[in-house]
Order: sequence, then structure tokens, then C-alpha cells
Amino acid sequence: MPNKTLIDLLNWRYATKKMDPAKSVPEDKVDAIIEAIRLAPTSSGTQPFEVVLVTDPDVLAQIRAAASDQSPITDGSHLLVFAAWDNYTEARIDEVTDLNIEARGDIPLIHQYYGNLKSNYVPRSAEVNYAHAARQAYIALGIALVAAAEQEVDCTPMEGFDPASVDAILGLNGRGLRSVVLLPLGYRDPAGDWLLPMAKVRKPRERMVKRVS
Amino acid sequence: MPNKTLIDLLNWRYATKKMDPAKSVPEDKVDAIIEAIRLAPTSSGTQPFEVVLVTDPDVLAQIRAAASDQSPITDGSHLLVFAAWDNYTEARIDEVTDLNIEARGDIPLIHQYYGNLKSNYVPRSAEVNYAHAARQAYIALGIALVAAAEQEVDCTPMEGFDPASVDAILGLNGRGLRSVVLLPLGYRDPAGDWLLPMAKVRKPRERMVKRVS
Repeated sequence: MPNKTLIDLLNWRYATKKMDPAKSVPEDKVDAIIEAIRLAPTSSGTQPFEVVLVTDPDVLAQIRAAASDQSPITDGSHLLVFAAWDNYTEARIDEVTDLNIEARGDIPLIHQYYGNLKSNYVPRSAEVNYAHAARQAYIALGIALVAAAEQEVDCTPMEGFDPASVDAILGLNGRGLRSVVLLPLGYRDPAGDWLLPMAKVRKPRERMVKRVS
Repeated sequence: MPNKTLIDLLNWRYATKKMDPAKSVPEDKVDAIIEAIRLAPTSSGTQPFEVVLVTDPDVLAQIRAAASDQSPITDGSHLLVFAAWDNYTEARIDEVTDLNIEARGDIPLIHQYYGNLKSNYVPRSAEVNYAHAARQAYIALGIALVAAAEQEVDCTPMEGFDPASVDAILGLNGRGLRSVVLLPLGYRDPAGDWLLPMAKVRKPRERMVKRVS
């Protein structure tokens, strides 16, 4: 992000409430955002989520209806649906292991590490594992918000939707996935967005950080 | 981050396994990372977490002992402990409301919005609310990882610790907080770090993203 600091980007971005339906995000910018998501670090490198990239107008309309009719879902040109693994399974961790071996060689450390991970994760309840996977998706969400700002693309992270409906619309259940957060991408409509002129609100540093030194 | 793209930063960073105990992160760099955390967006702007910034060597040693003896906790110069709210309460949401009114004026929309939020959140179980708060902390974690890389500071996100012990060491329970993730900050010791020479492992794009178009 030439000439822009991360702080600049964080100050530029906001949860866009009104997007301009006439403007479409170029594919290379969407690709850059997805690449940042792909590179986001996750616990033990499991990357326990997928992203569904929706541009089909009918599907977007269905998702909007399951998300309190929030307009950026259809006024944006692309919708990212972060969908976390519903559980950690042997097969999924084996896939991660294989990917590691492919990149780093067939070394004992990898087998040992992911063997331990299986022993720890697989016996846990699906709900505990899903909660853990969902958090990893939120690391990528944070990085995606920065990526969008770097591309000068607006976005709106949304939790206000019915996950069961979105899962059904996208057929996620059958793939062992659960939708956790939506991220419409598009361009702000400055004239129509009530939030844009409002000051950003953040708690002061002394209420965010305590020092133990 | 002049002359570096977000992708550059994500490729530069890695979960540093061995930090150089002789090197200390300058305070202005720590400040920049904390400012990025403070500016990270969260659900309804609640910012439902705090960060404990630990530099006290005795406290760091205690936390290391509660975290499988992972050396970056004491070899790094600063430790960030992300601590999520253990619950959403009326008082906490009122504080968020007040902060909004301070920044944006005493407008009916703010009272209505956070009144609704209270009606929705306060009756939920503490565990559901904590899980939600923890996810918000992970948005900030993702952004903190980028911030550290922009400052050319190494860091290591860590979930492998005993939260009850860390909560006790830092007195978090008494403040309605629960530790969710640790982030030591420091500088890599290239000669001592087994992970540094290894290739970064990420699943290929086609396994990360599905298009619905």
C-alpha cells in the first residue's frame, strides 16, 4: 500500500452502509483480498474455514433476505461468506498434514505435530471445535478488512444474519461448513450513507490497554 | 508501510519460534501496534476486549510456565495478552453508548441501537457472549499481526496456554475478563529458529474459495 500506513487504512475504512450498485469491484482487487485471506495465519496452520464468493444476483437476494434486508449484500458487487469447519476431523487434519509434507518434506516432526493435534482436537465436542475454527476465520476477516482498504474497496462485516438460512442457501451443511460472517465488497455511495459523515468511535487507549511492567 | 504491500507483509511474517532476548522492540513500534488494535473494527463497535501489555520479567516467567514453556514469551520484549469480556452487561453496553454519544452527539438512533443490543445480548448466556467477544478480539489479532509486520517486528500468536492460570496471574477474573490469545513481540533469532527456513504452507486457492456466480 504505497504511501499509506496501516493506520491510514484503518481510518479510511468504515462499515459501509450504502454501496453504489452501479459500481463493480474489478476482479484483480477481489483476487488480492482473497490472497490476503489465504495467507492469513491460523492455529497450527489448519486454515479451518472456506470462503464462498457470491456474485449470482438471485443468491445474493436470498442471502439479503436472510440478513435483515441489509442493502450492501446486493448493492456490492461481490459477497464473501466466511464458512468455518463445523468440526475438526481426522480426515481434515490429515489433509493439513499432507499439505505440510508437500511443502516441507516428509519429516517426522510434521507427523508428530499433527498426530498430537488429532489426539487433542478430534475427541472434543463439535461445538468446541467449531468455536475454535470460527475464531480463526476472524483472524482472516481482520486481514481482509485491511486488504480491502489497501485496494480502496469498501466492505461491511456483517454478523446480523440467520446462519442456518445462509448455510441452506449455499449448501454448506453438506460440506461440513457453517457460515460465520459476511463481507460484502463494493463502493460507498457517499450521498446515501448515513454512517460515512459520522466520527469513528473507539475507546481511548487507557481503556484498551493496561500495562504490567 | 511504504513500498510494501499487505501481501509482502504477510509473506514476511511467520510465527517466530525463537526470539533474540538481547533485542527490545522500541516503544513507538509497540504504540503503533496497539493503535492498530484500538482502531480494529468490532461488532456494533463494542470493542469487547482489552489488551494487557506485559513487560515485567517475573510476570512473563509465570505466564511462560503456564504456556508450555514457550520461549518467545520471555525472549520477546513485550507480551500482548488479548482478554475478552466474560459477558455483555448493561453497564458495559452503556459505556459503549456513552462513548458514541460523546463522539457523535446525543442522537436518538444511538440510544435505540444500543437499547436493542442490550435486549439481545444481556439475556444470552455468559458463554455465548464470551464466545462472541473472543471472536472480536481475533479481528484485532489479525490486524495486530499486520501492524507488527509493518513495524518489522516479529510476533507469535499463541493459543497453547492455560487460560485459567493466565487469568489468575494477571487478575483478569476480578475485572470480568478472560485471556484468549497471547502475542509476544520481539525480534527473530535467525540462527536459532527451526521454523524460519521452512516454506510457508497454505492451502491452494481452489480449496479456499468456492464461487457461486
